Amino acid sequence: MAVRVELLTVGDELLRGDTANGNATWLGRRLTEAGAEVARAVVVSDDLDVIAGALDDALRRADAVIMTGGLGPTSDDMTREALARAAGVGLHRDPDVERRLRDRAAARSVPLPPDALRMADVPDGATQLPNPAGSAPGLRLSLPGGPVYALPGVPSEMRAIAEESVLPELRGATVSAGVLRTATVWESVVAHRLAPVEAMTGVKLAYYATPGEVRVRIEADAPGRLADAQGAARDLLGSALYGEGDVTLDRVVHGLLADRGATVAVAESLTGGLLGAELTEMPGSSATFAGGVIAYATPLKHALLGVSADLLAAHGAVHPEVAVAMARGVRERLGASYGLAVTGVAGPEPQDGHPVGTVHVAVADSGGAVATRAPALPVPADGARARVMVRRMTVVHALDLLRRVMLGLQDADPWPGWPEDREEAG
Amino acid sequence: MAVRVELLTVGDELLRGDTANGNATWLGRRLTEAGAEVARAVVVSDDLDVIAGALDDALRRADAVIMTGGLGPTSDDMTREALARAAGVGLHRDPDVERRLRDRAAARSVPLPPDALRMADVPDGATQLPNPAGSAPGLRLSLPGGPVYALPGVPSEMRAIAEESVLPELRGATVSAGVLRTATVWESVVAHRLAPVEAMTGVKLAYYATPGEVRVRIEADAPGRLADAQGAARDLLGSALYGEGDVTLDRVVHGLLADRGATVAVAESLTGGLLGAELTEMPGSSATFAGGVIAYATPLKHALLGVSADLLAAHGAVHPEVAVAMARGVRERLGASYGLAVTGVAGPEPQDGHPVGTVHVAVADSGGAVATRAPALPVPADGARARVMVRRMTVVHALDLLRRVMLGLQDADPWPGWPEDREEAG
Repeated sequence: MAVRVELLTVGDELLRGDTANGNATWLGRRLTEAGAEVARAVVVSDDLDVIAGALDDALRRADAVIMTGGLGPTSDDMTREALARAAGVGLHRDPDVERRLRDRAAARSVPLPPDALRMADVPDGATQLPNPAGSAPGLRLSLPGGPVYALPGVPSEMRAIAEESVLPELRGATVSAGVLRTATVWESVVAHRLAPVEAMTGVKLAYYATPGEVRVRIEADAPGRLADAQGAARDLLGSALYGEGDVTLDRVVHGLLADRGATVAVAESLTGGLLGAELTEMPGSSATFAGGVIAYATPLKHALLGVSADLLAAHGAVHPEVAVAMARGVRERLGASYGLAVTGVAGPEPQDGHPVGTVHVAVADSGGAVATRAPALPVPADGARARVMVRRMTVVHALDLLRRVMLGLQDADPWPGWPEDREEAG
Repeated sequence: MAVRVELLTVGDELLRGDTANGNATWLGRRLTEAGAEVARAVVVSDDLDVIAGALDDALRRADAVIMTGGLGPTSDDMTREALARAAGVGLHRDPDVERRLRDRAAARSVPLPPDALRMADVPDGATQLPNPAGSAPGLRLSLPGGPVYALPGVPSEMRAIAEESVLPELRGATVSAGVLRTATVWESVVAHRLAPVEAMTGVKLAYYATPGEVRVRIEADAPGRLADAQGAARDLLGSALYGEGDVTLDRVVHGLLADRGATVAVAESLTGGLLGAELTEMPGSSATFAGGVIAYATPLKHALLGVSADLLAAHGAVHPEVAVAMARGVRERLGASYGLAVTGVAGPEPQDGHPVGTVHVAVADSGGAVATRAPALPVPADGARARVMVRRMTVVHALDLLRRVMLGLQDADPWPGWPEDREEAG
């Protein structure tokens, strides 16, 4: 049995929606990967009684509790006091931490606010967890219900302490599970295709859809069964499977380009730079990404990329031949191995008679060959949301087309599908 | 007193960190804006007993509970059953919903899976909340502890039902609060500057920092006091204040450009398209955004933007004069009113002897004038995180410089500051 962990996050700003609870998401993923089970995640306000009560409740249910937030220097940081209250112990000021805080302030020539020394307060009996990324240490306190870890809310500090001092203690028997990643196919189609795997004994599937992508998590009750299920799933997914585990589509494309000593240049319209931003997100991207042209205004498609003015006058910018000309133009002008282009309608209004979600993607290579796609994008009714999703899905379709071209898969496996308007599991 | 609301979200995928709990963030923000108080936010797994127990607990504490997730068609969707169990009632199948589900499937010529009809099950006594964005209605059930709202987990459906049927019921006495937004100044500097406001009677300040930006929430115990506090804060923040409430920096820049009938073209290096992507996120951006050049590889800064090859040979790409030449080059070549350029080192490795976080930003206008910035960016030690933050902060600094140039504020208010390595409140 895996260790059952509850997360207890402290912070009014999270309840008000001023900040997303990224710490809970990160901890959930890392704990799951380490074989622990996250049984519940609770966010409470900066209130001493409420925090202490929620900690009591969590310890009654779980094997271990990880708290985040409320360890800062200001008067609304209550986690140290709540921990002491739940444990029925006092607080003492740790001279080593106090000295570190004073040294840091002196090094910056700023006065140390008196409240900042509260970060040196430690519940009696608690162990301090070294903080490689900041001033306040994390805390670990063994209570009858199990260990409680209190970590700062600053993400870089929380992650550093969790990796070093928390995850190694909670690492359990690793669950037999793996993740397969697909692009440009609908969740319902993936689920339909994988029905035979779903029917295998001892195997559980879960689907996570993001715009343009579906991840399939396969869990099995034994490593051998996982291998069988993954093998069957790989066969059924065919060329829609772009990677496994933590890999992302931009990294797969980067790897394929690097393997070939090739580079890509992008010509963007509706995405406005999003495709280039995605291709430069990872360190080392300069080896495979040359640059790009954002030809947002229609005349720039002619002026900057050499798209025929007659073509633009006759058909407007949303046309497969425009995408092809953009891909060829940017490849040639930037001296890249591949040109990758997108044009289309992000919305919220239709353009030149084309509805929102009309998109043309093209890849041009150095031999003069081109590949194109005109994906049928599912478009939500809400215009602002549609715009975000269409732009994001366009990036996925563009990256996937380049992947397929490099693998010689651009004509493979045209799956039958049907419209699917649910962007994630209900 | 505001209505006290608890959020109860159902879904293993959230606990595992496969999906971020964006619904809780959105509901937190909208409920707070409506004057309700979000007292707690809980995420539990897809387990009937656990959900029903958590709902009981929440109803004991709060005035109202909003559940999200678990209303879908599959066997792990348990919210309907949990709601019926907590209420001590049965479930009945609603013929209207069943017909709608069958009609939708027929319209798409797909067979309706038998499980999908579970979406037509309704706890006895519950009211259905119309779902303008999908198949499954929301549910409202009045219990002795208060009303319970159950909404689908699909964000577009959840939001549509919440706006139409939930928020109007929970709207309370509006809290006297407002948000001021600043760019390019550190949180500690903003807090230091606003100390006199913090000291005002009946006034509470809270700070939310994101890379490059700090939002200040001012809450007061009376509308008059809020106005006084906001007035004082505006004076103290000076030109660092770019907007208030929900407005974002890209929209402020868009508005200033639109007011002047002006356009902008971008020349990007380290941001790889992120600046263009930001400027095209909002609907209607084509009125003010012409396009851009992503000159990622150094030679392209000469070939595409006309940056002097001698300058690049002598100083490399990370130099203030390179930024100026990029801004001038892109403005001229794309025929825009303003050219906006960024060059620098995103990391994780230094470049040409310049450390990660070295950034040069430039604006060129049609009269030949230029403005530049070389912000000292706080760079976290974690290389992958540093890269994300440097790129994001560069976008903010670029947008803010253009804002200042349009307002004639490019030389105003050089605040004293000090290094600040905490990216958000602990």
